[in-house]
Amino acid sequence: MDIIAYMQERRREIDRNLDRLLPPETQHPATIHRAMRYSIFAGGKRLRPILALAAGECLGGRRDTLLDLGSAIEMIHTYSLIHDDLPALDNDDFRRGVPTCHRVFGEAMAILAGDSLMTRCYQLLVDLPGLSDSVRLSIIREVAAATGTIDGMIGGQVVDLESEGKDVDRTLLDYIHRSKTGALLTVCTRCGGLAAGAAAPELAALTEYGRNVGLAFQIVDDILDVTETSENLGKTAGKDEQVRKATYPALYGLDASRKRAGELVERAIGEIGRFGERAEPLRALARFIMDRST
Amino acid sequence: MDIIAYMQERRREIDRNLDRLLPPETQHPATIHRAMRYSIFAGGKRLRPILALAAGECLGGRRDTLLDLGSAIEMIHTYSLIHDDLPALDNDDFRRGVPTCHRVFGEAMAILAGDSLMTRCYQLLVDLPGLSDSVRLSIIREVAAATGTIDGMIGGQVVDLESEGKDVDRTLLDYIHRSKTGALLTVCTRCGGLAAGAAAPELAALTEYGRNVGLAFQIVDDILDVTETSENLGKTAGKDEQVRKATYPALYGLDASRKRAGELVERAIGEIGRFGERAEPLRALARFIMDRST
Repeated sequence: MDIIAYMQERRREIDRNLDRLLPPETQHPATIHRAMRYSIFAGGKRLRPILALAAGECLGGRRDTLLDLGSAIEMIHTYSLIHDDLPALDNDDFRRGVPTCHRVFGEAMAILAGDSLMTRCYQLLVDLPGLSDSVRLSIIREVAAATGTIDGMIGGQVVDLESEGKDVDRTLLDYIHRSKTGALLTVCTRCGGLAAGAAAPELAALTEYGRNVGLAFQIVDDILDVTETSENLGKTAGKDEQVRKATYPALYGLDASRKRAGELVERAIGEIGRFGERAEPLRALARFIMDRST
Repeated sequence: MDIIAYMQERRREIDRNLDRLLPPETQHPATIHRAMRYSIFAGGKRLRPILALAAGECLGGRRDTLLDLGSAIEMIHTYSLIHDDLPALDNDDFRRGVPTCHRVFGEAMAILAGDSLMTRCYQLLVDLPGLSDSVRLSIIREVAAATGTIDGMIGGQVVDLESEGKDVDRTLLDYIHRSKTGALLTVCTRCGGLAAGAAAPELAALTEYGRNVGLAFQIVDDILDVTETSENLGKTAGKDEQVRKATYPALYGLDASRKRAGELVERAIGEIGRFGERAEPLRALARFIMDRST
């Protein structure tokens, strides 16, 4: 299948949905809504919502439910990027090729825009269409856990920040990757499955797929930071090494990192064999994550 | 009734519950959990959880449910204080008499501690004991709306920040107070009612009580900023005038502000006449809010 065309089409749909689900720029107080929209529409591959859609659709889930779920997750992902980019954290001036939220709206508004996107995410999850109350609560539970301090996104970010400039061993690096980016990527496929009524073994397969793809994604991210230009990445390349960040290439070298990412992608594809034809997008997405150059 | 003794007893219970519901300081990654606990246990009257308890108990709600609800709301309140105190926002060094979170843990950890407390709040609301899934979702919906950008806490904070040093009229001041602090205070009594199975007219009464008490609380807060010392308040007094913040005393003078707060408190008490004896704590709390000196 043509994964690039598939992703482009899904991305357009997701962007339309995000536009529908965010307050308009004219809505009072306008500044915060402009800041939220600025960061949401500043580019991005929409990998997380696409994973949620692909996972849910391979079990026959409803498109509108999955679009809202994916959009809500994209909001929480964008909140984390806005806060991570702040001067007190990673101090990044560019993201996805354009100035970061605090560079355009100031630090105060960027902090509040991040807060708002997280809040908006939960507002949307409460009213996901076409689901039972029990499934809605399960999804909120999963999203909150995956973005929290214990084995979740914030926990990973804390350990990542605290590890800068220090020697990081394999166990710690795995913790950072698994928590900081892996947990939310896994939530995409798990909640896509939950929203489509997945049975336990199906959910387990989607979880393992998400875990393996999530770790592969992060390893490739680390590799690209070394091998690509800032122009291509849309953010400052080589930054990991500059701040002595814990990365796969720093610990294992580029070749071993590529090999490991390839193995993880193959394992992810193996996990979803049971879904047959309908999982073709998930397979193609796993390969895309390996072969991407941005 | 002895409202001071009532509040002290409730406060002890709430603090024990908060301790139970927050990850221990030894939990990896420890820094973020220390920062979360530092701000939660840095003092505070626990007015919001006490309002939720008093509202729910006057309808026979379960103590454990209401304690968890109140604790979750206190976490989201504390997140907002941590972020508001940051250098990019109100730049406050002291809160409740002790150094603010970013003064102790640095800005990065303070931003993440705020994010974590909001996230933890939703984790707790999902699993509130003794409620139906539908009521749990209603409570999450209310909390998210009250803390969001449209007529909610973040919206109020944005307008407040943008109004500094400008002439603010009555309409705008009302918007700031209603959104920035009023919405979350109203949620306490409303969700206390929802958790206790309130019927529509009971919920309406608790909502009006919350609205009036919430506005009175903010007016008294503005008055105390003018009349009390920093030592007594535990934060920098006179700051509102210094940054030309929109306040009731600035717009109406102290006497008219006191009168208005008194009227609102009486109206709040009038709203809950229907509840009889069991609403005595709510009545005493309304009077306490008027007469407090910190």
